[in-house]
Amino acid sequence: MRPQELIAKKRDGGTLTTDEINAYITGVCDKSWADYQISAMIMAMFVRGLDRAEQDALTQAMLHSGDVMDFSDIDAPKADKHSTGGVGDKTSLIIAPLAAACGVAVPMVSGRGLGHTGGTLDKLESIQGYNVRLTQTKFKKIIKACGFALGAQTARIAPADRKIYALRDATATVPYIPLIVASVMSKKLAEGLDALVLDVKTGKGAFMRDHWDSEELAKQLVSTGNGCGVTTEALISDMNQPLGKFVGNALEVYECLQIMRGEADPAMMPSLELSVELTARLLVMCGIAESDKEAKGKLQHVLDSGEALERFRQNIELQGGDPRICDTPEKLLDKKLVQVEIKAAGPGFISGIDALAIGEAVGAVGGGRVRAEDKVDHAVGYECRAGIGSKLKKGDVLGVLYCRNKTQAATVTEKLRGAYTIGSKKVKSPQLIKNVIV
Amino acid sequence: MRPQELIAKKRDGGTLTTDEINAYITGVCDKSWADYQISAMIMAMFVRGLDRAEQDALTQAMLHSGDVMDFSDIDAPKADKHSTGGVGDKTSLIIAPLAAACGVAVPMVSGRGLGHTGGTLDKLESIQGYNVRLTQTKFKKIIKACGFALGAQTARIAPADRKIYALRDATATVPYIPLIVASVMSKKLAEGLDALVLDVKTGKGAFMRDHWDSEELAKQLVSTGNGCGVTTEALISDMNQPLGKFVGNALEVYECLQIMRGEADPAMMPSLELSVELTARLLVMCGIAESDKEAKGKLQHVLDSGEALERFRQNIELQGGDPRICDTPEKLLDKKLVQVEIKAAGPGFISGIDALAIGEAVGAVGGGRVRAEDKVDHAVGYECRAGIGSKLKKGDVLGVLYCRNKTQAATVTEKLRGAYTIGSKKVKSPQLIKNVIV
Repeated sequence: MRPQELIAKKRDGGTLTTDEINAYITGVCDKSWADYQISAMIMAMFVRGLDRAEQDALTQAMLHSGDVMDFSDIDAPKADKHSTGGVGDKTSLIIAPLAAACGVAVPMVSGRGLGHTGGTLDKLESIQGYNVRLTQTKFKKIIKACGFALGAQTARIAPADRKIYALRDATATVPYIPLIVASVMSKKLAEGLDALVLDVKTGKGAFMRDHWDSEELAKQLVSTGNGCGVTTEALISDMNQPLGKFVGNALEVYECLQIMRGEADPAMMPSLELSVELTARLLVMCGIAESDKEAKGKLQHVLDSGEALERFRQNIELQGGDPRICDTPEKLLDKKLVQVEIKAAGPGFISGIDALAIGEAVGAVGGGRVRAEDKVDHAVGYECRAGIGSKLKKGDVLGVLYCRNKTQAATVTEKLRGAYTIGSKKVKSPQLIKNVIV
Repeated sequence: MRPQELIAKKRDGGTLTTDEINAYITGVCDKSWADYQISAMIMAMFVRGLDRAEQDALTQAMLHSGDVMDFSDIDAPKADKHSTGGVGDKTSLIIAPLAAACGVAVPMVSGRGLGHTGGTLDKLESIQGYNVRLTQTKFKKIIKACGFALGAQTARIAPADRKIYALRDATATVPYIPLIVASVMSKKLAEGLDALVLDVKTGKGAFMRDHWDSEELAKQLVSTGNGCGVTTEALISDMNQPLGKFVGNALEVYECLQIMRGEADPAMMPSLELSVELTARLLVMCGIAESDKEAKGKLQHVLDSGEALERFRQNIELQGGDPRICDTPEKLLDKKLVQVEIKAAGPGFISGIDALAIGEAVGAVGGGRVRAEDKVDHAVGYECRAGIGSKLKKGDVLGVLYCRNKTQAATVTEKLRGAYTIGSKKVKSPQLIKNVIV
């Protein structure tokens, strides 16, 4: 089939057969489709739509465009978490050691930050020497040793998704549920999982918030996962303000270590709470706990006993990092940074925080990427001192920007101040977990 | 403006401003838009649509992406014809000398054949030595000398159209009226014309017949031309069967020469009729004739007197070709070709001829191109012996295939035979001119 015939069919609103979708993905991988033909097809899919059967066929074709990991020689149940991305979302770094400490094997393939959202790999690379480029053999060996590994998507995992995602990013075709489902699930299903929990963010700081219905996305992800034989659930979680205390790579690792050390301050509690909720679902799905309550008891235990921190320490060492950071997390805080306080212009209650603006501000001072090839400054970031519902006096500190110099700070302080909506009415803090989709 | 922002706007059905369309075309030309971004935009335009203001802005932006020819130093009115392309459509080769002989300057920039349709440039290159690659200086010099020149679109004429058309061809986004209008008119308006007549084909052998309404296309072309200050009219002409007697490059030149020599046989008359109709409109639009009737009288005169043939002879010599072909057109018929008669399977009346299939069959024996870089065999082709309405006995010859050998013939004879629908009812020959759009 010529690319033009398949493109024309979707262009005119036709429904592609599984064979046709397979031919498309084969063409993407063997380069018989040119980039401009792939992007025309993607736009036609975006505007004309894909039905459920097409979405499933696309997911399967993209999954089987590369290797599917085989962990059958690991006895433990295999499970992972995936988040649709938010600001200050650092739960992967807590969930992996927590789940591992409870007997789950976690083969976590993660991404890098792009746009206003951070990436787990960038965060981990704040740790001196930490290596996320693992061969499959090394990846498995680390999982066997400490229960989890955190690696970058290799060229052998869903290569069709790598190609297509890069084109979607460049052609304004990211925010469409069937394409998101195929992209997320083709990668996650390649991890050879028994269970998967999804953290679908909703609110102002969520990825492409205007364009999707997070409930609908969560339902599609869950049903696709279950349809492919992986027990899947999703939480819809709030992203109307940054999650937890810090936004920024090293700062977020610091927050995670403080949590696992039992030294979290109140601003960090949402990060812990969401991590526990997500991990608890995994333990129940894996049959390690009978109920959410039992699961949370187990999680509290491995936190209190230090087992979770110990797993993280082992992992850091196995992935080439300096594990002493677990004992001195304050070393992640770069003393040479300039700290600029963002203050309230008047009294009142915080009724809204534009998490997207905060993510963009951290990106603008070097903490994120605009293009995939950009370098990241791991140290810079933002500390949230006040959340939605906080009562303020004029001049109270809303947050603190950590950046390289005053000139850099000047470019974003207005944006940061503008991220806060302060009203005279009392406001309740938003509920962190909005819904569970099973 | 980032490409993604403009693409997203059209993706969501927004209306692009003139500035936005200019930014897009600038990006196409300066390569700041990647091919895959251009094709995503084209698909979004195709599916979401362009309104009249967007269509006009696109036409203007593409026109001004390159040079606009200046013939202000030629006193004669400047005019041209453009056809949307059909099978056996050879009128350019008759119209240009006819119009020139009546005092019109014809700067005809033409294309090559692609798919089932032939191209004027390929036809001309059947003439030994004929050169279509002219500099603008040479092009103008030839027009001054003989009244017309026939040249290839250079890289300096509407370069945005060259780029965009190649991508449309590869991404199934050709058949959409606003894109067709912008493509056709950006090139034709660059010829610096006073008048333009369009031959919009309708019927089975017309380009992308399923996808457009030829009346609507004609109206849009005419109104865009007039809106840009070029007096423009269109004829809707029949393409339910090949035009005239021959399909194939050298064979079509032969037919044109026979017509201009006054030696046309009845099967060639439709080619003459359509050429006269189109040229008559040009003469009226240019003010050379007051009425269609007067125009046709003048055309009959330059045909009868041999002035039209003389102009063609001069042009061939000026463009490097051997003008003696005008005296011995039979030299265009390659004696080494195999001739295979296609015969009627039963008695009856021809109720339909699939001109597209005939065009494709000629292409398949080497007379056309699938890809732009393919070489063309100028000699091969097809002779139509019977048209719609012809009464047949079993075994009557429908047409004759001219090709290189029997093996080649065997690949297309079934297709050619299948191109004819023969019924028991008497059928009228279709009207050649369906409508005039002014």
